[in-house]
Amino acid sequence: MKEFDINSLDDVIHGRIRLGIMAFLVGAETTDFSALKTHLGATDGNLSVHLRKLEEADYVKVEKSFRNRKPLTTITLTTTGRQAFVRYLDSIGKLIS
Amino acid sequence: MKEFDINSLDDVIHGRIRLGIMAFLVGAETTDFSALKTHLGATDGNLSVHLRKLEEADYVKVEKSFRNRKPLTTITLTTTGRQAFVRYLDSIGKLIS
Repeated sequence: MKEFDINSLDDVIHGRIRLGIMAFLVGAETTDFSALKTHLGATDGNLSVHLRKLEEADYVKVEKSFRNRKPLTTITLTTTGRQAFVRYLDSIGKLIS
Repeated sequence: MKEFDINSLDDVIHGRIRLGIMAFLVGAETTDFSALKTHLGATDGNLSVHLRKLEEADYVKVEKSFRNRKPLTTITLTTTGRQAFVRYLDSIGKLIS
């Protein structure tokens, strides 16, 4: 077994809320803000902060639009994000094995 | 598969340095401060802070003594710590599966 290396862990993903976002998106691919908020039990402010961090890393794409005249924020996992998550799982997998 | 729940993650363990300490100790059982420091590439101050947090949770036992007239700090994983780590791995394992 290769040794678990704490420095191999992607800090952008390792944060608890961001880990939750990524884990959700890797299954759902696309979600909207309120569904994600409900799923994680996060506040608006907290979720926004962490989404911005993931967006800055180009791990998610955040798009604002309207549906039935109400603002809708759609979050989509990017290819970069999916690859980063796979690497993260690989690193953390070494911890488990 | 049970869903990955971010709230099930033990925050005491999830922090990167503390995760590294726990992962090391689960194999080594007992170590000394400088070996752990070298292994993690952490500074004295940083390592001390995180060891204290693990000690406060009763996950590790920290003992100071002397060996060849030099101060020696020994860190041992407790039974509580081992159990908490197993639970942590179980939670994070749901993310991988």
